[in-house]
Amino acid sequence: MSGLGVTWIDGVLEKSLPLPDRGLDFGDGLFETVLIVHGQAVYFDLHLQRLERGLRTLGFPNCVSLVKTHISSILSSRGFNRLVAMRVTITRGEGPRGYAPPDTCTPRVIITCTNLPDDLYKKIALPARISMAKIRWGSQPDLAGLKHLNRLEQVMAAAEKTKAGVDEVVMLGQHGSIISVSAGNIFLYADGSLVTPDLCECGVRGTRRQLVLESLAPELGLSTRVARVSSEQLIEADEVFYCNALVGVRPVAQYAGRTWKRHGVSEALHELYWERAQ
Amino acid sequence: MSGLGVTWIDGVLEKSLPLPDRGLDFGDGLFETVLIVHGQAVYFDLHLQRLERGLRTLGFPNCVSLVKTHISSILSSRGFNRLVAMRVTITRGEGPRGYAPPDTCTPRVIITCTNLPDDLYKKIALPARISMAKIRWGSQPDLAGLKHLNRLEQVMAAAEKTKAGVDEVVMLGQHGSIISVSAGNIFLYADGSLVTPDLCECGVRGTRRQLVLESLAPELGLSTRVARVSSEQLIEADEVFYCNALVGVRPVAQYAGRTWKRHGVSEALHELYWERAQ
Repeated sequence: MSGLGVTWIDGVLEKSLPLPDRGLDFGDGLFETVLIVHGQAVYFDLHLQRLERGLRTLGFPNCVSLVKTHISSILSSRGFNRLVAMRVTITRGEGPRGYAPPDTCTPRVIITCTNLPDDLYKKIALPARISMAKIRWGSQPDLAGLKHLNRLEQVMAAAEKTKAGVDEVVMLGQHGSIISVSAGNIFLYADGSLVTPDLCECGVRGTRRQLVLESLAPELGLSTRVARVSSEQLIEADEVFYCNALVGVRPVAQYAGRTWKRHGVSEALHELYWERAQ
Repeated sequence: MSGLGVTWIDGVLEKSLPLPDRGLDFGDGLFETVLIVHGQAVYFDLHLQRLERGLRTLGFPNCVSLVKTHISSILSSRGFNRLVAMRVTITRGEGPRGYAPPDTCTPRVIITCTNLPDDLYKKIALPARISMAKIRWGSQPDLAGLKHLNRLEQVMAAAEKTKAGVDEVVMLGQHGSIISVSAGNIFLYADGSLVTPDLCECGVRGTRRQLVLESLAPELGLSTRVARVSSEQLIEADEVFYCNALVGVRPVAQYAGRTWKRHGVSEALHELYWERAQ
């Protein structure tokens, strides 16, 4: 499997995408990045739930069971014994010229599996250094939370991350409050409680964010709150971490002149995250 | 040429797109829809200017002259004698997994030519009936105006248009003012002057909008203004029209209970539009 991955389209190994495709033309589609460990999809149900919400919002037919079938078939035939990132993209498929979706659409299921470095978790064991991106999230309440294919803002933020030589960048919303990092959600721990930004106007409702809020934090007896978060609150927090499907929970060591040396709560969440993932 | 068009990728006739492609993965790219009449690209320079601005904003290499070469080669080899919509898509090409663009990228130039109905202009000769879309433009000043590949809002608006059985739908911005139609810019004529919405926060800076503002309106002695436009202003206007690369200038006959029967200014602009296009 090359560094660019192996792709199946509608269950068939392919090196290219039939054209036209509305995913390419307009970003008319959704995706999930699923972590595969020992040949198993980790926290799979959370991905499927979000995907189903997205399909409904965009007016796609519900093809979740088809997606599950394709994924199961790949996992059982390949029997991955390495860490794999499985990107599952659903586009609205083919259509005539123009923005309007066709009356009936046949979604395309594009699955790309890419080997992750075996030492991924050794590499990211060190707490992250993060800075702030200039590009902000756009405000779009009707699509906020979904993991659709319109991701230019994060692309531009990630370019800033590369340029700054940091592990992640914080992205603000249009009103200046903190929303997320470029590829994950952010939490702060202060006054004995976890807080994560409200995503009503923008951002992606991450599967690991949901997991922390609904399961991991309560299990550790931590109260949680979804609220507007300012950069000052982040700097003054006792701990900060971000989370996504590949890194799990990663503590933050540096941001805007502030350094954190203790990460007890983040580490406890990270441990529980892996225990529950098995 | 089928209804779905014929596609060239980097100058070669293709039926499919090599994967991975960041245009598909993240909408990491730009496009232009160029009208071809008698084998010639209409108002071509305006498209290239916008494309160049977009490439710069997204941090792509400037590949405008390459794009021109591919287009010229297609036009001269095909010698289209019908009305053709030529969609020119530039993606950031291949890249490793994740949002961050590769250090050096090789943009892909994807050109799709689709025959337009020969009676297109007979079909749209009647002034348009338009209604209002529920979905609004998101607010994103950093990307506003560009014709990038993140176009889900317009896809959803166009789906509303189909459902409502109208010719176009008006899209508002987050603050409730009018921005555009789903596939074009909008103008109103009132008190002897043309007004079109300000696009600092969202919307696409259309080539035909620029043409009306900078060239056609001045030539007809019409003053122009770019300003915030409310739905009430639209309803009270003496005339309303929208414009895009395929329809040119199309007057509006009905919106929100209001009917317009006279379209003298829109028609004068439309005539001059075609005169200057030759």
